[in-house]
Amino acid sequence: MTKDSLKAAHKAGFIPEWMESVSDRQSFRSIFKWGAGDEFKNPGQGFLNVIKEELGLADDDFKIPVRIGSSVVENSCKTAMSAEDIILFESIVGRENCFIDTYERLKYSTGKAMEDIFNLREEKIENISDIVLHPGSKEDIQDILRLCHEKRIPVHVYGGGSSVTLGLTCPRGGVTLVMNTHMNKIVKFSEINRTISVEAGMMGPVYEDLLNNAPEKLEAVNKYTGGHFPQSFEYSTVGGWVAALGSGQASSYYGDAYDLVVSQEYVTPKGSFKTHDFPATATGPKINDIMKGSEGCFGVLVSLTMKIFQYQPETSRQFTFMFPEFENAVNAARQISQTDSGMPSIFRVSDPEETDVAMKMYNLDKSIIGRVMALKGLKSGSRSLLMGQTEGDKAFSNNLLKQIKKICSTNYGSNLSGYPMRKWHKGRFSDPYMRDALNDFGVLIDTLEASVTWENFTNLYNKVRNHIKKHPNTICMTHASHFYDQGTNLYFIFITKMGDIGEFRTFQRSIIRKIEENCGSLSHHHGIGRMMAPLMEKHLGKAQMDVLRAIKKHFDPYNIMNPGGLGL
Amino acid sequence: MTKDSLKAAHKAGFIPEWMESVSDRQSFRSIFKWGAGDEFKNPGQGFLNVIKEELGLADDDFKIPVRIGSSVVENSCKTAMSAEDIILFESIVGRENCFIDTYERLKYSTGKAMEDIFNLREEKIENISDIVLHPGSKEDIQDILRLCHEKRIPVHVYGGGSSVTLGLTCPRGGVTLVMNTHMNKIVKFSEINRTISVEAGMMGPVYEDLLNNAPEKLEAVNKYTGGHFPQSFEYSTVGGWVAALGSGQASSYYGDAYDLVVSQEYVTPKGSFKTHDFPATATGPKINDIMKGSEGCFGVLVSLTMKIFQYQPETSRQFTFMFPEFENAVNAARQISQTDSGMPSIFRVSDPEETDVAMKMYNLDKSIIGRVMALKGLKSGSRSLLMGQTEGDKAFSNNLLKQIKKICSTNYGSNLSGYPMRKWHKGRFSDPYMRDALNDFGVLIDTLEASVTWENFTNLYNKVRNHIKKHPNTICMTHASHFYDQGTNLYFIFITKMGDIGEFRTFQRSIIRKIEENCGSLSHHHGIGRMMAPLMEKHLGKAQMDVLRAIKKHFDPYNIMNPGGLGL
Repeated sequence: MTKDSLKAAHKAGFIPEWMESVSDRQSFRSIFKWGAGDEFKNPGQGFLNVIKEELGLADDDFKIPVRIGSSVVENSCKTAMSAEDIILFESIVGRENCFIDTYERLKYSTGKAMEDIFNLREEKIENISDIVLHPGSKEDIQDILRLCHEKRIPVHVYGGGSSVTLGLTCPRGGVTLVMNTHMNKIVKFSEINRTISVEAGMMGPVYEDLLNNAPEKLEAVNKYTGGHFPQSFEYSTVGGWVAALGSGQASSYYGDAYDLVVSQEYVTPKGSFKTHDFPATATGPKINDIMKGSEGCFGVLVSLTMKIFQYQPETSRQFTFMFPEFENAVNAARQISQTDSGMPSIFRVSDPEETDVAMKMYNLDKSIIGRVMALKGLKSGSRSLLMGQTEGDKAFSNNLLKQIKKICSTNYGSNLSGYPMRKWHKGRFSDPYMRDALNDFGVLIDTLEASVTWENFTNLYNKVRNHIKKHPNTICMTHASHFYDQGTNLYFIFITKMGDIGEFRTFQRSIIRKIEENCGSLSHHHGIGRMMAPLMEKHLGKAQMDVLRAIKKHFDPYNIMNPGGLGL
Repeated sequence: MTKDSLKAAHKAGFIPEWMESVSDRQSFRSIFKWGAGDEFKNPGQGFLNVIKEELGLADDDFKIPVRIGSSVVENSCKTAMSAEDIILFESIVGRENCFIDTYERLKYSTGKAMEDIFNLREEKIENISDIVLHPGSKEDIQDILRLCHEKRIPVHVYGGGSSVTLGLTCPRGGVTLVMNTHMNKIVKFSEINRTISVEAGMMGPVYEDLLNNAPEKLEAVNKYTGGHFPQSFEYSTVGGWVAALGSGQASSYYGDAYDLVVSQEYVTPKGSFKTHDFPATATGPKINDIMKGSEGCFGVLVSLTMKIFQYQPETSRQFTFMFPEFENAVNAARQISQTDSGMPSIFRVSDPEETDVAMKMYNLDKSIIGRVMALKGLKSGSRSLLMGQTEGDKAFSNNLLKQIKKICSTNYGSNLSGYPMRKWHKGRFSDPYMRDALNDFGVLIDTLEASVTWENFTNLYNKVRNHIKKHPNTICMTHASHFYDQGTNLYFIFITKMGDIGEFRTFQRSIIRKIEENCGSLSHHHGIGRMMAPLMEKHLGKAQMDVLRAIKKHFDPYNIMNPGGLGL
């Protein structure tokens, strides 16, 4: 927001002085801030008004920022690693790739969970590794694991650092391997196989840019896309997508990270291996699949081969429909997921509370679209938004759009054109920036999500939403954003003011338990980390956890690989 | 063939007196015969002429059937099971579900591999179980496994008995559990989730019939299909599809068995469990996937939940194209697999040798289609057939067909209409019957298949085909029949005359080795059984085999579950 537009906005009503100064180098703030240091996105007036209203806040609540974590991280926390071991690590990766100062260790032991951020804002230094290494090759990682195995030193893997489930904390210290510094190169591109092989630490935008510009950069005939766009796209790695089982905003069409991986190469305490790159095979249980989602508990993913798709943005078609009730929108979404005509890429259904916030965020109520809604009697508090995008070959994309229109119409949906969808699309990677702006004034914003079968959708939605809404002055916006013939996911965004991390933890964990008790998955695409780990045994049952423990024990008999991860 | 038509055919040329008498009850022949006892399919004159010509055989070679296995299996092979244990098993499943006579034990220890059939024709009784049990419930199976675990008795699982990879032999005797007798019931149908849950022993046709007639049989609104049609469809079970990782003739669209399973319930020596039925989840490595393809080595699959699809045969569109060279057909097939318009369901590309045989089998060379080919200069020896079917929603199916036509035309394919495809479709489950007819005259027909990346397609095809053709008087027909963006499978059918099983084994195993050496998968959809097991370590490498061994050891510390299966 420029100074001028800020002034104009102030006239319309009070606007907080959002903190937009670049954080001091080596400050706590520089660690928890989302994304680029000099990029900011503040809540618009519409969204802010909703927050004030629902949370019972006044202008005064947005005047003095709290716990902004501006202090520089002092080098106060001595590493527990012995000088002898440090020298050994230096001899493997080189002195310039070894860090034992507190800031580096804190930075790479912290993810983007609300709890991580809370801790950093309180300037707590807890559960950090003893040494940060930036390995340069598979051989480096083999040497590191050999040493750590021998000396029983814990090993953690840092991809892009976007874990929101406490996936990066190091309760027993040890080593953190940072993959995106050097392990980020292309290994092989095969246009005929429609695959690309990369080192695990390649960042999302680099990967997508390579593929989009394949004719220039990879001597390809056509342009390609990886089709994987998690909200953390800009700050996540290809390996991280697979290790923590991510899904992207277009995954309903392209598939989740799980589906995109053709083969993987691992270094484990028990040796290294690379799986075959057959598109399918009937040679017993697939090791390639057993390793997916192992969150660094079995070994280190060093490189992987991924499916790629034709890049043809010109065929994408956007759609937005408004339904009188949530139930109508959900029915339409299910029917769209079961057309046998293929799937939309982006596809989202918002509940009434999220719909109303969206309308205000995008200033749609006052537009022509708002007038159409008023005329049709689509009322705030019950209306529900369905939007998305079709992709793929042109005729395929057009045909699917036609089906979607038909289904939405049958379910009493009003066509709002592609405009709101395109509006959402613009902010799709930058919305997380808003969290920092709100957190500065003690407003917490967090998300929890679960897979759900169609059969259990309404039950899970009601139970979890009711539980969240029991907490006074709390916004709960819910959507489904990943669709399958057999079900979808539910994504709960809750916003409330809380000063105490203990109170927040209690509330947040109670929501997770409520999801689990009502037959939602512990995670649809956020992974497990240490946040869900304590519930894994209850969720999967002892028999299944025993299988994971057996595999863990095989790869990692001394429990050095991300100890405590996955509840193992 | 009726007596009259047989006479007419004899006039046209010599036709063997194919054996069409129903085998004696309890004869060796009744075990190895493919499919229903009173159904036969004999090679047509066209196909027979090819065989005679290529194998250098004369009419005399088809006059005296050899090794027809007509003897009744005498109850000569005493079970090694103690009387005490037999009584214990009887107390679990009931006396009427326990069999120790030689015939039953032989019958359920033999699959449909050429080697199995050779042995039965030679009236050998080898590697059979000691007792056959027909369990009635999960609880029965739990009791059986508890007993076998305690007493170290091997356990084998028999689904439909169609294994072609020696998956059913019992080198250490023990128990065979027959799943299709009682464990064949529907557990749950969920139209809203688009799933059906069944016991593992339900046979393919029962399963498909339930779904096709869902409105009458399951009180559903719509009709459904399971979308899984292996050539063994009529003689295979739903559980067997998953335990041995089958693919069906329409799997390019519907997915392989691996893709169709939402959740599974297992009984293992280490306890029982059921996986969740979420369509996707990010809760660590998926136990549901780890169990797929375990071929009875980890435990017994007792029930499973499968994806289902709308049944709309009226939208299917058939296509057939003839290309001047194999290379053109393969290029077209790859481009079709990579359209981003979805996949055909049935989809096959035949090499020149298979194409020529098909033309003769379907009598197409003399039809108008043959004349079209002659006019276009599509020559025997190089022309290659591509055929298939599109399905799904009507517009989706039509659009895909349009794309296919365009791609085939660009690759110099001539449209032969949907007729040859429909002709193939009619015989698609009955072709295996022909094997018995030919075997009666010592003509062996066997198949081996492998997954392959597009990049390696030509290399694998050439190397394996050349190896097979080095054997004198041998037909080698090859096709690809399962397609992915990243690759396909190669399916080699070889026909030759051999009297000696040792010679056959040596030849067949040399082909498997040739596939493996040239970077084909050991199996695309036939599973591993004991035929590929010895090559598993070389194929996957020690590190990956160690993972399978670790899981095996966890579930089955005394190695009672299908010992030797998967090479474990």
